Amino acid sequence: MNADDENQGRLKLRRIAIDTYRENVAYLHRSCSIYRAEGFQALAKVRVFCDGQQIEAVLNVVDDERIVAPDELGLSEQAFAQLCAEGGRAVRVAQAEPPESMEAVRRKIGGERLTGEEYRAITSDIAHNRYSKMEMAAFLVATGQNGLDRDEVLLLTQAMLDTGVRLDWNEPVVADKHCIGGIPGNRTSMLIVPIVAAHGTLIPKTSSRAITSPAGTADTMEVLARIELMPDVLDRLIRTERGCLAWGGTTRLAPVDDILISVERPLGIDSQGQLVASILAKKLAAGATHLLLDIPVGPSAKVRHMRDAMRLRKLFEYVGDRMNLHLEAVITDGRQPVGRGIGPVLEVRDIMYVLENDPRAPVDLREKSLRLAGRIIEFDPDVRGGHGYAIAREILESGRALEKMRRIIKAQGAQDKEFGLGALSFDVLADEGGMVVAIDNLHLARVARLAGAPISKGAGVDLLRKLGDTVDRGEVLYRVYAAYPANLGFARDLTTRRSGFLMGENERVPGYFVDY
Amino acid sequence: MNADDENQGRLKLRRIAIDTYRENVAYLHRSCSIYRAEGFQALAKVRVFCDGQQIEAVLNVVDDERIVAPDELGLSEQAFAQLCAEGGRAVRVAQAEPPESMEAVRRKIGGERLTGEEYRAITSDIAHNRYSKMEMAAFLVATGQNGLDRDEVLLLTQAMLDTGVRLDWNEPVVADKHCIGGIPGNRTSMLIVPIVAAHGTLIPKTSSRAITSPAGTADTMEVLARIELMPDVLDRLIRTERGCLAWGGTTRLAPVDDILISVERPLGIDSQGQLVASILAKKLAAGATHLLLDIPVGPSAKVRHMRDAMRLRKLFEYVGDRMNLHLEAVITDGRQPVGRGIGPVLEVRDIMYVLENDPRAPVDLREKSLRLAGRIIEFDPDVRGGHGYAIAREILESGRALEKMRRIIKAQGAQDKEFGLGALSFDVLADEGGMVVAIDNLHLARVARLAGAPISKGAGVDLLRKLGDTVDRGEVLYRVYAAYPANLGFARDLTTRRSGFLMGENERVPGYFVDY
Repeated sequence: MNADDENQGRLKLRRIAIDTYRENVAYLHRSCSIYRAEGFQALAKVRVFCDGQQIEAVLNVVDDERIVAPDELGLSEQAFAQLCAEGGRAVRVAQAEPPESMEAVRRKIGGERLTGEEYRAITSDIAHNRYSKMEMAAFLVATGQNGLDRDEVLLLTQAMLDTGVRLDWNEPVVADKHCIGGIPGNRTSMLIVPIVAAHGTLIPKTSSRAITSPAGTADTMEVLARIELMPDVLDRLIRTERGCLAWGGTTRLAPVDDILISVERPLGIDSQGQLVASILAKKLAAGATHLLLDIPVGPSAKVRHMRDAMRLRKLFEYVGDRMNLHLEAVITDGRQPVGRGIGPVLEVRDIMYVLENDPRAPVDLREKSLRLAGRIIEFDPDVRGGHGYAIAREILESGRALEKMRRIIKAQGAQDKEFGLGALSFDVLADEGGMVVAIDNLHLARVARLAGAPISKGAGVDLLRKLGDTVDRGEVLYRVYAAYPANLGFARDLTTRRSGFLMGENERVPGYFVDY
Repeated sequence: MNADDENQGRLKLRRIAIDTYRENVAYLHRSCSIYRAEGFQALAKVRVFCDGQQIEAVLNVVDDERIVAPDELGLSEQAFAQLCAEGGRAVRVAQAEPPESMEAVRRKIGGERLTGEEYRAITSDIAHNRYSKMEMAAFLVATGQNGLDRDEVLLLTQAMLDTGVRLDWNEPVVADKHCIGGIPGNRTSMLIVPIVAAHGTLIPKTSSRAITSPAGTADTMEVLARIELMPDVLDRLIRTERGCLAWGGTTRLAPVDDILISVERPLGIDSQGQLVASILAKKLAAGATHLLLDIPVGPSAKVRHMRDAMRLRKLFEYVGDRMNLHLEAVITDGRQPVGRGIGPVLEVRDIMYVLENDPRAPVDLREKSLRLAGRIIEFDPDVRGGHGYAIAREILESGRALEKMRRIIKAQGAQDKEFGLGALSFDVLADEGGMVVAIDNLHLARVARLAGAPISKGAGVDLLRKLGDTVDRGEVLYRVYAAYPANLGFARDLTTRRSGFLMGENERVPGYFVDY
């Protein structure tokens, strides 16, 4: 190309203040000479070049010069940040080729097995944002359900781990804990971390914010302390206190998972293979040598049948063993929410009751946390098998867990705002008497979410009755808290349709299984 | 909800001049009270209500009040048009539920067969824009490759046909013709339609514009006549002239296909089931009773092996028979482009040579068109089997086809602009001597496209050599035309890397099969 052509292909970069989440979007004016000459089409992908950097983005065509002028190329926040350039710089645009690894995805759709190299090419293209949402959806569906055999799950785990940095703590036991989720109020991490750290085992667990649930551990911890810490601060804190309760943030650890999740969640595709690879790659990247998995099972939990839980456990074990990770999976009671509170402030109340050995502490939250913490403590070679629970209980009852929690809060930085319960509330009453035989986890999560949790810290649901309790007609089942009338209205609308509690005189509460 | 809550949930509608193609996008300011209270997340789907209408859209979060203010809800062009409301109207926004039929898609991903009712629910949700790109990708992948058995293809065809209006011409023979594509220059429709219409058989064929190819029939016809006609004008024209060469546009006929294609193309998923259902639903909706299918086979065609062509033909026949459509499929020579010209103006030149019985007419384009037209003429009960070709040839040689073409051009409205060949050109030379043993359809299409076709009518490729020709080193293989230097440069870069022609002394030209 001569200099003239070169200039013809240049546009001025402009940052467009539109948040397109995990998808890069480029905005081109319809009268832009490049757009007309190239015959681009809206939603085709383009590649944008600037000062040796390049990114790919989906193209949106704009007819308003105030958004983007004909001699400009606009990029959404995400895309702009990735290009690491300044507004006004000269950029060049070309039609993007589909990522090369899509060829392997198409063969996967056709039912073939892929190699480790192919999985690495795919995760690398995803990590470099070369996949559109559609392409990610295609990959997820092709590998969903029974699309991956267990050796492919292993290859995918390895590929995800290879895409990003990996921490090394230089210790023989680096413990971590993960719950596959779906149970409201299941905030055991905030008890397990102080207990395990007080024992002296390193547990550098970072937490996530809620995406579809009414609270993630990060949202709840934020009631007490700062959770967004700089990597070096976090590192020092973990080495000093042996544990932390900070936000994982957008880490460079196995970043593919963070990207895929933006497609997986809205699609609601259930893929055990993807789940196992994502979790294990994340934990291995964080430097874990020992992992305790919590798999709750219940009629409204993520895993609904014992046989599915067993299958999932075996898949975790198969991959974990081959990745040299000491992995133990416990199948737990997921028939109802854990504790009483659902939503950040209410959950903190329950957690502090447990740490303070207050008689109002919910027994189920306390017991589950002690048993899981006990299992992790037994990762310590100096602890005799079966002694973990007693050690955990001693740490809790002696106040050492509370002390450790206070140190962690102080180290992370105590929260300066004081969060209270939402000022508005209403009660949901039993419309018939009997025994509580079922509580719908999903429904109560939805109520808490509509009430404003987790954005509104004081919003949520406080359960006054749980499975097996006998109630009279008109008794309060749970109380809903909200900060804004609109939220209260949304939540009330939903509870009017259905409380989420099932009563029965003769029906039996579904079987309870313990596998701790 | 009381009146206060009601007002809290209202925003002012604003049209945002961004073309998001087939995806609805809603723009909400980050400080908008609704966004904050509901805890929406970018790229989550929202439902927008206005005056009894509702649509769904993907949410983008905006930080610039010039694009959308905190009390406004912006909608992209597509979404705004669908809502059929005026700017400034009060709208309400709520979190959208995923479309109900996604449950069936998830079961399809799991390998289950779906029922006719489920396919109808899916196509209806897609037609009402309730599916996001991701969800459509999930559906396409789940039904791709061998995801659909032939009875499911039938059910899907029926479902697509049921979603939209269906024309009825009240005639016993309503002919149509379709080529499954992939061969540049294959502009037989512009010869078949005048020949068949001159015979008197009704052929209400509408055409598409190119999406990924260097020209669609609509792009090429536009060189000669107006192609965007109002439905009533088109209807009158077809009844008078017995045929037309107009743009199908965004019709209400089997609209699901138009929507799915926006995901299918960029993903490059190859699904025979989807292909068959899409084509047949479209043709049946347009009122066709008889259909001739052209399935080109060649090493760089869409269908690469004879066995795949046979499988596709049988699937078409199976579904066509059960939909009461008289269907004949012919497998044709797809080893190289048809005719000499690739790109609108060049293709028109070839077509006019054929219609004018000019000795410069490309033989392959003339012969293929006559044979296909002959097969369609034999749909006429008064024509004896085997006589179609001779009738077609007589219509062409007598000048009646040219006369019919002139009438159609006049009826549609002759083009007032005159399109010439691109002013810039370069030659691609043979870098070795020998016999032309292969021509890469995809590569030549790409060259023509980079040169500016179809947007730039005079851009494209003019083939001077074809399969079986003997050339000396340095002889011209083809000439590339462009209107702009940048385009010429793009095309030249590509041809420098590879011409797309393969020479060989001893190698044989791949076998030629005729099945007319």
